[in-house]
Amino acid sequence: MYLCSFLHNGQEKYGALTANQQQVIDIKEAEQALFHSKELPASLNEALSAPSSQRRLEEVFEQANNAGANVLSLNEVTLLAPIQRPNKNIICLGINYREHAYEFEGTTEDDKAIPKQPIVFSKLPTSVAAPEQGILSHSTVTSELDYEGELAIIIGKEGTYIPKEEAYDYIYGYTIINDVTARDLQRNHKQWLLGKGLDTHCPMGPFLVTSDEIPNPQKLDIETRVNGEVRQKSNTELLIFDIPTIIETLSKGITLQPGDIIATGTPKGVGLGFDPPKFLKDGDIVEVEIERIGVLRNEIVPARVSKETKIEIN
Amino acid sequence: MYLCSFLHNGQEKYGALTANQQQVIDIKEAEQALFHSKELPASLNEALSAPSSQRRLEEVFEQANNAGANVLSLNEVTLLAPIQRPNKNIICLGINYREHAYEFEGTTEDDKAIPKQPIVFSKLPTSVAAPEQGILSHSTVTSELDYEGELAIIIGKEGTYIPKEEAYDYIYGYTIINDVTARDLQRNHKQWLLGKGLDTHCPMGPFLVTSDEIPNPQKLDIETRVNGEVRQKSNTELLIFDIPTIIETLSKGITLQPGDIIATGTPKGVGLGFDPPKFLKDGDIVEVEIERIGVLRNEIVPARVSKETKIEIN
Repeated sequence: MYLCSFLHNGQEKYGALTANQQQVIDIKEAEQALFHSKELPASLNEALSAPSSQRRLEEVFEQANNAGANVLSLNEVTLLAPIQRPNKNIICLGINYREHAYEFEGTTEDDKAIPKQPIVFSKLPTSVAAPEQGILSHSTVTSELDYEGELAIIIGKEGTYIPKEEAYDYIYGYTIINDVTARDLQRNHKQWLLGKGLDTHCPMGPFLVTSDEIPNPQKLDIETRVNGEVRQKSNTELLIFDIPTIIETLSKGITLQPGDIIATGTPKGVGLGFDPPKFLKDGDIVEVEIERIGVLRNEIVPARVSKETKIEIN
Repeated sequence: MYLCSFLHNGQEKYGALTANQQQVIDIKEAEQALFHSKELPASLNEALSAPSSQRRLEEVFEQANNAGANVLSLNEVTLLAPIQRPNKNIICLGINYREHAYEFEGTTEDDKAIPKQPIVFSKLPTSVAAPEQGILSHSTVTSELDYEGELAIIIGKEGTYIPKEEAYDYIYGYTIINDVTARDLQRNHKQWLLGKGLDTHCPMGPFLVTSDEIPNPQKLDIETRVNGEVRQKSNTELLIFDIPTIIETLSKGITLQPGDIIATGTPKGVGLGFDPPKFLKDGDIVEVEIERIGVLRNEIVPARVSKETKIEIN
């Protein structure tokens, strides 16, 4: 399934794409129409929280897809991040592609730049942005705004001390995130929470693709473009710490829960890596594309000083 | 008010202490008994999420306290962390007392050890532990388990770009956290999420004390004891970055939300700072005491390899 969350007539909903990928089934409407019941919870995040609702979601999708029921055109809806309000920070791997390690440390092929152990930090739930939503430049706070295209894992089953061999059993699906980074804050504050955590600095989507659709997540082309210019071009086979290692390492003493989002790191080609650096500015369009998932597209827009956090799609 | 969350007859509830601090008013029961309504939400965290429910909570407390209604003895209940399931990671300041900066860097009064900007990291919601709950030693993962007693701020009002002068308007109250740290993971993984984030490594409580009870949060004695031996003894007046500065810095581009928990950093005297280091071992009792808030007491217990995250109070 290609799952998504979206706004339709001002209401927050979720659904799954039909085979042509031009239409989305309104899952809760379909449940009511076809099953005459309202078992499914209000959000996709909540639907992932229990095996029973995961099964229900799939069951409703199958039937609605066969019946061609409760279908909306993608043009009629405004996509949200698949998990618009995560229950905790997004867990992120830092420096997890070899060539990116070199550019980040400003060295050439120096093995000291390669982490011996996974580097793990987090992005605040308030940093999540929808596909096509503006990324705020926060220009009073940062002058070194950068992109990082990344494959993200969505956990589907609770677990701790998960061995590598079982890691894929705990994965529900995959999505794309842009780990937008304020390089000056990242550098000046030593730990990365502020530099990685500004509002709208975690665009996510467009789809949460269930793992059955992606036979080998370690063999996916990933590309980031700024105003159409290719900046990052790599493949997830080049991860330093692969997906089973990430899950095993994180879950050593930490309980992973359904709905957890784990970003796997970014390849070479971030703005910081160029000489001179190519930081983002208002009006730039950033696209992150991952094979089998889609394109996550956002424009950089001027900072807005506001006390609102309601979902506003620019 | 001295607010708390607790288990009573297997049910999760919340309440506020009576004047003698020996009894707790079951707030939702009191609302039903005195107001014949059920407006208040299921958890203290949710009750903080809107000004209307914050007012309701206070209103019910006032009436129940005057009437002596719906009172339970503290002996009858099992305290939980005041916010047992935070909506996002706990936001934490690192190296925010001068003397702790020296011991952490292993230097004597070297100004290079003092951060120029606040160091900010986070602890996962799954790391929260209740007062008196066992802190898992996770001995297969770490052999350098350490304590860090800290004053924590609870946010009561949503805001972004909050100037220092308005910072206290956004604070709902205060609690204690023990920022338990696996020093080897903290060091080996560079970023601190893993070293700070193991299950049960964020004991919190015993009470969420509303800000009206604490006229000056920058003048509170703080003390940490291990098996009765005083290890940390300081006062919050010694914070490098004070509370208004913390709120102003964090909220520059990041929306703070009601229920957010911000730990302000730990003073000198952590286990790592001794020569040789005094790390924690199974059976040790750690107590963090902060003036006007109370004592947060936990025992170190052997790691348990389990797939459960249900609330289990040891």
